Amino acid sequence: MLIQEYFQTRSEILEKALDSYLAPSDEYPSQLHEAMRYSIFSGGKRLRPILFFATYEMLIGRKNVNRLERLLPAACALELVHAASLIHDDLPSIDNSSERRGMPSCHVKFGEATAIMAGDALLTKAIEVLTDIKNIKVALACIQLLTRAISTRGMIGGQAVDILSAKKKININTLRYIHLKKTGSLLQAAVELACIIYDAEENVSITLGNFALNLGLAYQIVDDILDEVGSFEVLGKEPGEDSRNYKATYPSLIGLETSKKTAEKLLRDSYNMIKNMKNNDILIEFVNMIKERLP
Amino acid sequence: MLIQEYFQTRSEILEKALDSYLAPSDEYPSQLHEAMRYSIFSGGKRLRPILFFATYEMLIGRKNVNRLERLLPAACALELVHAASLIHDDLPSIDNSSERRGMPSCHVKFGEATAIMAGDALLTKAIEVLTDIKNIKVALACIQLLTRAISTRGMIGGQAVDILSAKKKININTLRYIHLKKTGSLLQAAVELACIIYDAEENVSITLGNFALNLGLAYQIVDDILDEVGSFEVLGKEPGEDSRNYKATYPSLIGLETSKKTAEKLLRDSYNMIKNMKNNDILIEFVNMIKERLP
Repeated sequence: MLIQEYFQTRSEILEKALDSYLAPSDEYPSQLHEAMRYSIFSGGKRLRPILFFATYEMLIGRKNVNRLERLLPAACALELVHAASLIHDDLPSIDNSSERRGMPSCHVKFGEATAIMAGDALLTKAIEVLTDIKNIKVALACIQLLTRAISTRGMIGGQAVDILSAKKKININTLRYIHLKKTGSLLQAAVELACIIYDAEENVSITLGNFALNLGLAYQIVDDILDEVGSFEVLGKEPGEDSRNYKATYPSLIGLETSKKTAEKLLRDSYNMIKNMKNNDILIEFVNMIKERLP
Repeated sequence: MLIQEYFQTRSEILEKALDSYLAPSDEYPSQLHEAMRYSIFSGGKRLRPILFFATYEMLIGRKNVNRLERLLPAACALELVHAASLIHDDLPSIDNSSERRGMPSCHVKFGEATAIMAGDALLTKAIEVLTDIKNIKVALACIQLLTRAISTRGMIGGQAVDILSAKKKININTLRYIHLKKTGSLLQAAVELACIIYDAEENVSITLGNFALNLGLAYQIVDDILDEVGSFEVLGKEPGEDSRNYKATYPSLIGLETSKKTAEKLLRDSYNMIKNMKNNDILIEFVNMIKERLP
């Protein structure tokens, strides 16, 4: 199956599920509900839920878009957390990004106060949605895993270090920490949620978790490289934003060539972690997709 | 038992539990963990967890501070959500409060970006803590109840309408909505969580939920009245803040005397809802405590 077709078919059922979970935009207070929907339906790539679908479908050994219903709460939860984090990251006191995917960011469109609340509400919704999982033991395990992935030891920790490092000289270990936590934690959660729902063995879950962490780090390094040498089209945003924000990047710390080599090594390692697994074709496409972004 | 003694003994075990749930302030990233602890341990009255304890101890018919261990996850979750909401409410783009309980508010002390993350992290921690409840069916029911109480149909909805109403003429129904949702939702959740853990009958849970909503609305009206005629000592903050923020208050909309009468009626109704319940002494003290704040 072509990766494009896989993304498209899985995105479609995800969009429907997200639409059904979110309150309609005319429900009171409508500006808040509009802001939530604006951020969720703004052309995101749905990378986390689709990595989650792909991991589960690899484990269960079949690809059938009609059999994914029980996966929808966790898939939506991942996207809701991601959207919440982007809204708060874009705020003036954090990254001060006035655009996101070529559109005004949430606080520009709806005001800062409503954007803060929309982020809080999406974060809360993510967990509420997980209570929809029918098997209560699985539901609780998913909630525990996701809240830990979001926590100060996960995504929020990475974001906090990113904030505290702005306009400061940091070393490569700190930057690695930021990328692994800020981006890696949620990708790791995506594959680990699939493992919980499939009831995979512990060692499979650990291997796939490391695969996702590696993939996330590679993705961020490629993003750093594109921020330096890429175009608006490839990056989906104005390049050079990091240096304008005085943010450290892999190229600024270890140079462009070493950055490329590091990304290539991570992608090779990712590939090796899953190359012997059955039905791994879509996960391998994830590795290739990032490799192809490398200039 | 004196209400003061009840508050003190229950607060003590709550503080210990909160301390054990939060990462130490020297754990990386330490500024984030410090900000979370600063906001949690800043002399809050612990109204929500103590209302929760009191409801459970009324239902079970005994007061024994040594038997509250199984209640600690939900008690802490309530306080964590409350602290998260205060941090975000105080932000410059929302209420712009530079002080909270006579101390610099979180964003003044730690910067706006860290304060936003600290609020997100406390909100997430609240749910993570609920996964500690041993009975998984009860745990999941508590998570569902609390996330709905926080949602756009609860606390966040109230806060959003409050934000959107600033500097606008609103009517008494909108102000009532704001108070019921912003303050009432979490108080209602406090008593309903006690009902879930005790496994109370539906009608008891509904009555107690309405009791808490009434109590919350009365509390807010008294706060509005004190903001007009109170002192720093009674209010715990500079009076007149609402009018400085061009916020509607009960006295500004229906006058001081009618506001007082409305609060008294709500407190009388609250009392009537629980007067025939056994072991209701601490809940009645809650009603009296608010009555005594009335000037």
